Amino acid sequence: MNFQIIENGGITSPAGYLAGAVYAGVKSRKSYKPDVAILLSEKPDTSCAALFTTNRFCAAPVILGREIVKNGHVRGAVINSGNANAGTGEAGLKAARDVEAYAEDLLGLAPGELIVSSTGVIGETLPTEKVKDAVRRIVPALSKDGGGAAAWAIMTTDRMRKEYACTLELSGGQVKVGCMAKGSGMIHPNMATTLCFLTTDAAIEPALLHRLLANACEDSFHMLTVDGDTSTNDTLMMFANGASGVSVREPEDIRDFACLLEQILADMAARIAADGEGAKRLLTVEARGLKTRQEARRIAMAVAGSTLVKAALGHGRLYEALILSAAGNVESDAVFSKAECRIEVASLKAKIVLDFHGGDGSARAFGCDLTEEYIHLNGDYRS
Amino acid sequence: MNFQIIENGGITSPAGYLAGAVYAGVKSRKSYKPDVAILLSEKPDTSCAALFTTNRFCAAPVILGREIVKNGHVRGAVINSGNANAGTGEAGLKAARDVEAYAEDLLGLAPGELIVSSTGVIGETLPTEKVKDAVRRIVPALSKDGGGAAAWAIMTTDRMRKEYACTLELSGGQVKVGCMAKGSGMIHPNMATTLCFLTTDAAIEPALLHRLLANACEDSFHMLTVDGDTSTNDTLMMFANGASGVSVREPEDIRDFACLLEQILADMAARIAADGEGAKRLLTVEARGLKTRQEARRIAMAVAGSTLVKAALGHGRLYEALILSAAGNVESDAVFSKAECRIEVASLKAKIVLDFHGGDGSARAFGCDLTEEYIHLNGDYRS
Repeated sequence: MNFQIIENGGITSPAGYLAGAVYAGVKSRKSYKPDVAILLSEKPDTSCAALFTTNRFCAAPVILGREIVKNGHVRGAVINSGNANAGTGEAGLKAARDVEAYAEDLLGLAPGELIVSSTGVIGETLPTEKVKDAVRRIVPALSKDGGGAAAWAIMTTDRMRKEYACTLELSGGQVKVGCMAKGSGMIHPNMATTLCFLTTDAAIEPALLHRLLANACEDSFHMLTVDGDTSTNDTLMMFANGASGVSVREPEDIRDFACLLEQILADMAARIAADGEGAKRLLTVEARGLKTRQEARRIAMAVAGSTLVKAALGHGRLYEALILSAAGNVESDAVFSKAECRIEVASLKAKIVLDFHGGDGSARAFGCDLTEEYIHLNGDYRS
Repeated sequence: MNFQIIENGGITSPAGYLAGAVYAGVKSRKSYKPDVAILLSEKPDTSCAALFTTNRFCAAPVILGREIVKNGHVRGAVINSGNANAGTGEAGLKAARDVEAYAEDLLGLAPGELIVSSTGVIGETLPTEKVKDAVRRIVPALSKDGGGAAAWAIMTTDRMRKEYACTLELSGGQVKVGCMAKGSGMIHPNMATTLCFLTTDAAIEPALLHRLLANACEDSFHMLTVDGDTSTNDTLMMFANGASGVSVREPEDIRDFACLLEQILADMAARIAADGEGAKRLLTVEARGLKTRQEARRIAMAVAGSTLVKAALGHGRLYEALILSAAGNVESDAVFSKAECRIEVASLKAKIVLDFHGGDGSARAFGCDLTEEYIHLNGDYRS
């Protein structure tokens, strides 16, 4: 696989994408950080695939988004932070439809060509007029340089902006892939995103795009845990507009593209975990030597998600018996007397390798430590 | 059911039980709190039933205890706090056997008549000589008044002693039931105890005793969560020595006894949750109106165990959408648009009633809030 990172790249690095963001004051507590963003593909025939939260109490934009993405062709997204439009019932659905229709109208798009996405406080009414006013201001200012502002706008309690872009050489020529994500609290499979948007100027059929996205999630976003809860709004979405003139169709191209996508999502998952609410350290847990990959996945997640392990790591005090005890929560065929445990704790990350020497099953999970600050953030998140 | 609480009662309230405890210094950090206890039935033919942790990385005393309890007749237990004898391999098993044999010898019992039980730090060698020396000092001092000291000795980070005793009128006359428990961190089904010991002077066959104990657990200890992890040492054990001369054999007696046992264990589960590490509030979650009891159990546990719900409660800021979002983590047939949520937060407890108006399935779970102190305690627990 031949790829190259684009420094300071993001979702508008691939050809044919525009973005923009402004401050709308969605959240009552003023921050003046941009909180509404638009991502738009200039190509009419843009493929789109998306994965949404499995939480049964999903938010209005998720209910709406699931419908829209079904046809496989979507032109872009209107995204706001500060209010998740979750737990808002029929009024929330109406608000999301209202924002969608307003933006589609301004952009000259047909109904069902935009997805609305929200993140932030749940259970409160979306200030629709504020969001629409922001949309009105963003549309004329959409640009090739807007990716960074959009990545900033979707952040909530994230401390770091999460963007990525690279080039990839395929048999038909070069394509580009861009990404932005926001994470922080409420992160757990399946889905483990909060929000993540990917763009590419390759041409990819919607069904293939969906398969590539779902596969790439398996070892990244689905192996990520910050606090054990899925969110009402988790959305992972990818656009492929074909603006490069290069298609992903040949087996080796598909393989390379799949491999790149896995790397990008694993990198994003690690960055989201490292930036977990109140977290000081990224925790990577590798479970090895198990009978099956499924068993390894469950054990890696149990250790990465253990409140005790995370609290101990918060004070830099991981020890073997605690880790084995967390792994012991999983019903498995693992022989604990054969287990070997390696722990590496550095100032910003920790790695646990747990080898049961009993097979080829292995998996890696991403998590973070649990600190007093997490409690502060979540106790006071609403105020 | 005709029963009466015995004020200040405990495990030695029923006839024919002795207990005692001393300070042995099991944990290196000095506390001078008793940390080794013995509970003994004076009757040779005492029935015993026990449930142990499901954690695969279980401690040496659990491995040993499972074997011993199989024959259904055990005379008592040697219990230490401060060191769990977990993750200690063959040496740990040998240490537990050594303590058992030493105590049996001093008490004039046959091999396999005592169970050893441990709680505390995991992954460290049990200071066997200290424990044996404590046993030597306790044996001559065993008494009818020793229940309180034993309940104190088994505490680790518990802030409150957890004891209970009552009388129960059966068709053949009055019997007594006593209980002591310790909880705090690492509490989750199945098992959710850390340690709990029950005594009765009723005569109950071992198989029936086991059934009664397992049933009583279903809606109490198995619906209890403090931090989502099972422990390596969880043990729930009941002795029935027949010293009252009254048997539990008739259907109505069995029903009454079962009902009382459920009440005692639900009360203990609530007390353990309320005294969860760093917890300020007991959280009770009732899930109602679901298709099945199993669905209600999973939803009640998901809400009681949600880190987000618990952190919000730590700041007294529970709100409906957060609770529904936690419930939404469970795969269920619940219709969220029909959900009704009642929240009562008082200074020492909080109650959530979540009604989906979709059936007769209901369940109750016990949990607690998550505070900054939990992190302190678990980050520093070992030092």
